[in-house]
Amino acid sequence: MTMPGYIDEKAAIQKRLRRIEGQVRGLQRMVEEDTYCINILDQVSATTRALQAVALELLDDHLTRCVVNAVAAGGQEADDKINEATAAIARMVRS
Amino acid sequence: MTMPGYIDEKAAIQKRLRRIEGQVRGLQRMVEEDTYCINILDQVSATTRALQAVALELLDDHLTRCVVNAVAAGGQEADDKINEATAAIARMVRS
Amino acid sequence: MTMPGYIDEKAAIQKRLRRIEGQVRGLQRMVEEDTYCINILDQVSATTRALQAVALELLDDHLTRCVVNAVAAGGQEADDKINEATAAIARMVRS
Amino acid sequence: MTMPGYIDEKAAIQKRLRRIEGQVRGLQRMVEEDTYCINILDQVSATTRALQAVALELLDDHLTRCVVNAVAAGGQEADDKINEATAAIARMVRS
Repeated sequence: MTMPGYIDEKAAIQKRLRRIEGQVRGLQRMVEEDTYCINILDQVSATTRALQAVALELLDDHLTRCVVNAVAAGGQEADDKINEATAAIARMVRS
Repeated sequence: MTMPGYIDEKAAIQKRLRRIEGQVRGLQRMVEEDTYCINILDQVSATTRALQAVALELLDDHLTRCVVNAVAAGGQEADDKINEATAAIARMVRS
Repeated sequence: MTMPGYIDEKAAIQKRLRRIEGQVRGLQRMVEEDTYCINILDQVSATTRALQAVALELLDDHLTRCVVNAVAAGGQEADDKINEATAAIARMVRS
Repeated sequence: MTMPGYIDEKAAIQKRLRRIEGQVRGLQRMVEEDTYCINILDQVSATTRALQAVALELLDDHLTRCVVNAVAAGGQEADDKINEATAAIARMVRS
């Protein structure tokens, strides 16, 4: 089985995702306690930024390992990998 | 105590937040199972979009209730509320 | 004729838009001179940020004048204005 | 001199940038004519999207040519190019 690009960063990424899960649970608590809208909005923005940081980490790992390996192997696969990465970046930028 | 703008939408917002918590746990599972980077990236983008939808809902509720009440009450408070909302939108756009 | 919300900021907004026009012409010059991709990308990001700053200024003016006036006038128009503003913010966040 | 990644797309990119310049001039005209705030806001969002499409095109060209060449050449330069690209994507996502 091919190892994913983030294989060496798995523990660090899981740690970030658990922290984000905690942030989302914190949001539920804030809503439960009728916290002021703007304070919740700011916490939503902070959570969004944390998710985007994970996306950028995954993308960096993907380019560094998967794309580099595909380029080293040469041929059509390299082009396919790059088009696939660009399409994922486009979906990320528009989200 | 003043009711927050989202008071009538509390159940709906909590439901969305629980679904987002599920998405973040799904991301952890995907990483655990060495899912391909691009598939995870797309799920991160979907989670980001879900969070932004919550932000827009909260903002709409805030404008509809809190800002409208402040404007009805008149005076400096209305201006303050609008500046506060615009600043939160700016933080949201840049996140 | 109803005055737009930005009426008092017209000169300032035009000045920003002319500067953005200059940035876009600068981008054309960079491409013409075969400037390195990453340097152009960074200038595109700077231009995008400048456009978003104009959007936030217009939104603030709109909330401060048009929405406040609609709320003061009362009735259905206030709700319509707020829904319209929220929908425009959603299109802005997703762009 | 090294050719930039977008060398084969130069004419297409210039065409897009001239169209964006026209959009920015259109925004100035709308402000001049006291166009309704929300209509201008939507045109600003459309212009922002057009700029992001140029950024994604430049990034794709950059990965396809410059990064691939650096990887083919091997060594430290490949890693540097990928880190540089990821950093530019991060600035783009946050703009």
